[in-house]
Amino acid sequence: MGKVECELEDVMDETYGNLSPGLLLASVGKNGEKNIMTIGWGLIGVLFRKPAFMVAVRKSRHTYKLINETGVFTVNVPGEGMDEALDFCGTKSGRDHDKFKELNLTAKKSETVEAPIVEECKIHFECRVMSATDVTVTGTTKEVLESVYPNKNYHRLYHGEILKIYRDET
Amino acid sequence: MGKVECELEDVMDETYGNLSPGLLLASVGKNGEKNIMTIGWGLIGVLFRKPAFMVAVRKSRHTYKLINETGVFTVNVPGEGMDEALDFCGTKSGRDHDKFKELNLTAKKSETVEAPIVEECKIHFECRVMSATDVTVTGTTKEVLESVYPNKNYHRLYHGEILKIYRDET
Repeated sequence: MGKVECELEDVMDETYGNLSPGLLLASVGKNGEKNIMTIGWGLIGVLFRKPAFMVAVRKSRHTYKLINETGVFTVNVPGEGMDEALDFCGTKSGRDHDKFKELNLTAKKSETVEAPIVEECKIHFECRVMSATDVTVTGTTKEVLESVYPNKNYHRLYHGEILKIYRDET
Repeated sequence: MGKVECELEDVMDETYGNLSPGLLLASVGKNGEKNIMTIGWGLIGVLFRKPAFMVAVRKSRHTYKLINETGVFTVNVPGEGMDEALDFCGTKSGRDHDKFKELNLTAKKSETVEAPIVEECKIHFECRVMSATDVTVTGTTKEVLESVYPNKNYHRLYHGEILKIYRDET
């Protein structure tokens, strides 16, 4: 099946609707190591005059190391039948698993960034980090600190410029 | 005209589409002082398990002081005929102007937060800041630093939980 380029407004609702069960965040390290993690959070819109996708990654994550090294990522919206991949990529670390290989997923070359896309997904965002900001204790409400950060494992928020969006031909 | 409650997916496209020409960000200080500013940037989605709206405010802005005092804001999507208000609220400071009064706009009481809505707008998001993060020199690309921050007037990013959304009855 081919892929066709599209605009943010064409895929915004579908992407938001897929945050539950999850999207796949793909990254690459400076040595070419590729990884995927499942994300259930994400923000879409405009920042710094650019279409933007914000993803949140905890500092303990392997993806954190990879995005910090290369400053790029892709967000991939899974289609039907990918629940197993979402579960695996949400619970296993890329330090211990080559998730692409173990799940038999295709790390296809992106058009604009070094991070791969997950070809089996139906929508793809290629992104380059414009700015990364850190969640801090002083800037965060007590309620969020208690519910999200009982182990002080804070997120870095990666604000990526969306360089290209494409999806499966329908 | 009455207002009806709605879900994020009902108004996401329309809100994104209105970032240009602009949305109205309304805030309130600890002493009750109300202000409005025009925003052309914003991110919508899910963060910390909540529907979320991120707005970016430069540290020089009067709105920055107000949101830091009370931790709440509303985002309002203007309808037709509000270009003058968008222009005024994008160029004049609340330090020197009571924008609600001068523009003859109605600061209507919100249902869940202290910040008012701009009643003449067509869609309203009531938000409480969950976390605020700061754009930093070290976390930001050279390209963004040069194009957005030639005067080092950095943004604080306010990640607000969307507590309620409603819109004009159609």
